[in-house]
Amino acid sequence: MIDAGATAINCLDRTEALLAGVRRAGDVTAAVGRRRYLHSGPPISLADVPGPMRGALIGALIFEGEAASVGEAETVLLKRDLELLPCAEDGGVGAMAGIVTPSMPVVVVTDRSGHIRTFSPINEGLGKALRFGAHSREVIERLHWLRRVGCPLLDVALKNTDEVCLSDLQAEGLRRGDECHNRNVATSGALLLRLVPGMLASKFPAADIAEAISRLSANPHFFLPFSMAAAKVVALSAAGFAGSPLVTAIASNGVEMGVQVSGTGTHWFRCEAPLGEPRVFDGYTIEDAQPAMGESFITEVVGLGACALRAAPAITSFIGGDQASSRRIIDEMRTITAISSSRFLIPFDDFAGTPAGFDVHRISDLGVAPTVNNGFAHRQPGIGQVGAGITRLPIAPFVEAHTQLIASQPAAGQPGRSQSNGGAP
Amino acid sequence: MIDAGATAINCLDRTEALLAGVRRAGDVTAAVGRRRYLHSGPPISLADVPGPMRGALIGALIFEGEAASVGEAETVLLKRDLELLPCAEDGGVGAMAGIVTPSMPVVVVTDRSGHIRTFSPINEGLGKALRFGAHSREVIERLHWLRRVGCPLLDVALKNTDEVCLSDLQAEGLRRGDECHNRNVATSGALLLRLVPGMLASKFPAADIAEAISRLSANPHFFLPFSMAAAKVVALSAAGFAGSPLVTAIASNGVEMGVQVSGTGTHWFRCEAPLGEPRVFDGYTIEDAQPAMGESFITEVVGLGACALRAAPAITSFIGGDQASSRRIIDEMRTITAISSSRFLIPFDDFAGTPAGFDVHRISDLGVAPTVNNGFAHRQPGIGQVGAGITRLPIAPFVEAHTQLIASQPAAGQPGRSQSNGGAP
Repeated sequence: MIDAGATAINCLDRTEALLAGVRRAGDVTAAVGRRRYLHSGPPISLADVPGPMRGALIGALIFEGEAASVGEAETVLLKRDLELLPCAEDGGVGAMAGIVTPSMPVVVVTDRSGHIRTFSPINEGLGKALRFGAHSREVIERLHWLRRVGCPLLDVALKNTDEVCLSDLQAEGLRRGDECHNRNVATSGALLLRLVPGMLASKFPAADIAEAISRLSANPHFFLPFSMAAAKVVALSAAGFAGSPLVTAIASNGVEMGVQVSGTGTHWFRCEAPLGEPRVFDGYTIEDAQPAMGESFITEVVGLGACALRAAPAITSFIGGDQASSRRIIDEMRTITAISSSRFLIPFDDFAGTPAGFDVHRISDLGVAPTVNNGFAHRQPGIGQVGAGITRLPIAPFVEAHTQLIASQPAAGQPGRSQSNGGAP
Repeated sequence: MIDAGATAINCLDRTEALLAGVRRAGDVTAAVGRRRYLHSGPPISLADVPGPMRGALIGALIFEGEAASVGEAETVLLKRDLELLPCAEDGGVGAMAGIVTPSMPVVVVTDRSGHIRTFSPINEGLGKALRFGAHSREVIERLHWLRRVGCPLLDVALKNTDEVCLSDLQAEGLRRGDECHNRNVATSGALLLRLVPGMLASKFPAADIAEAISRLSANPHFFLPFSMAAAKVVALSAAGFAGSPLVTAIASNGVEMGVQVSGTGTHWFRCEAPLGEPRVFDGYTIEDAQPAMGESFITEVVGLGACALRAAPAITSFIGGDQASSRRIIDEMRTITAISSSRFLIPFDDFAGTPAGFDVHRISDLGVAPTVNNGFAHRQPGIGQVGAGITRLPIAPFVEAHTQLIASQPAAGQPGRSQSNGGAP
């Protein structure tokens, strides 16, 4: 008899995520189209999108040439002349607003079999960026440069490079002081350097390559979408196992947070998006911060991010906390996760595996909700990031999933794969 | 009244080391010439050089075209037709055998004023390498490639790059899991990536650049000579202050270890080279290991290496030990060092500065000798590295320096700079 729960855990612990490409979203997923864009979190209507997501949509319409100005873009939104779908609809995963449009370059990742395919929009850099709701000229121009030069170059470089296993890069990242969610400093450089010889083997002019390396290497979060899409592959490989209490998605649209669980498929268990106690950047206050938005918590789902805080001690200067609080968080996460990761190891704790695989039964039984790292956008459209922090998630959706899972538990001896929300490769 | 001791400490803590070039040693220092080579550690006669240094000299003679075969090189050594000088003679610092010949590419580093100039031979990679005494065809060919392509490319790239402050890279390295002596994984990539746009702005063919990046990025110790030469600049800036008990050099030739102290100038306080308890690689035994050889302990002199062990927890898989032993070493080093570094911080210890500035008075008073990280070469010429470890140094030379310093103490109010062994820029 196959134990579906154990299989789900095994998938979460062992599925390898391979980098497949950096491509135009419209060439990767049919979920996007003209005036049909993706967003972070559970479904939300255009009328309800919060300020920063609205700012990102304005920028997205300008980027796609659907609007020539902020005013024109606002008119499109006012007329509700735009369809919105969640990234999760087809294996996408977006940081912050997570807006994906047809021309937007996305990182594409698969499992080794090629049956699971995920994608995540390329990271633009810190500060003023579309994902935080900014849409100034510099934001749009950077996106165009990424679309025109940066990402095609990355894609051709990858074709000229031996297999890039992102799971291995994440594991090594933990030895280089990254937790692969809010700190990606060393791993960003490692991935980029790996691709440089492949860039040089391309037909791109040396000046373009030099500019790309200068620009991309200046972004300490270059690796984030690669890390997220890799985590999404792993999470989807563990999704849809009957009875399994493993959390497979935690995502927020800035208004509502949603949780998906392996044994309950693609159903979103929802609650109000949490604000927590972010570390607010100079010049802003907590009142400026939009509650949690984005899907980068997928990294915590697989045992990275807050679950690997003690591998990345320098991150505390960015998100707050100290080593004692990092230890408390990880010790606590061990009580609500299924395993210690066999591959994501914390060198400082004598190579103990990170806590991995949030279990809604344990969460419900102990009354302990997961903790995640995250960034915060300004409530107003067009401004950008105002803070970052370590956030305790609301427990309600996890408890609800637990209750439903218990209620729908199949009789023993009937395990199996139910449904999956992974995209076709 | 200027306090010479405090000035020396301040120099050790604050002097910034800038990358000045990667050049042919013969163009950098007049200390090398035809059949006049440099070596690690205090002066040693050709008759006394240990096996691995002998192996390196054989390789060096072949590399320089002074011998066409191992046999011809051995004849040169037998006839004593080769002059040997210590690297320290003109601001050099060499890993392991530390052999520097006129054609050998060296990393060149200066302080901000340009008054201090140091150099260190480029790192060839792990395993079979000249510095460990190997001299096979592949070793010689790699040196020729570095001389012909790799290093000229690095040098021109640097000319096309904004200032590279190696002290900053070391400080960031500690946030990326390196201790910048025996673990340089993230910092090697960071430095190389920084230089890539400058490479692309050169006239080198793309194929050469791609090959250089592939080869150099495969070497996890690429940064080591940069780190060592940077540390040497800092140590020299603290050298020659009357009465100062700061250690400014710890270097070994495989037979004798020597220590230099700020207040006693360029005098070597010597003892038998220690063996310690290295972690020996599979296939070798402790009997195969030559006692300590090399000058990379200069990194410990400035507060890196073993003084920063807790910043690099993954290093224990290479040199042995665990987090508890790393803590004991650092706690103990704090008792014999002058300061906690203001720039080399251990993120995991809530950004405490590393212990920096070994003080021969404290060492002597407490009876506690410094501990360092190091690598070990096979005793026989031509083989290579057989191990790595964490080694407690013999205390005798430090105590001897303490005694001499006390005996020669100038009257109060007569501080000042005495002599320096730094090279002219």
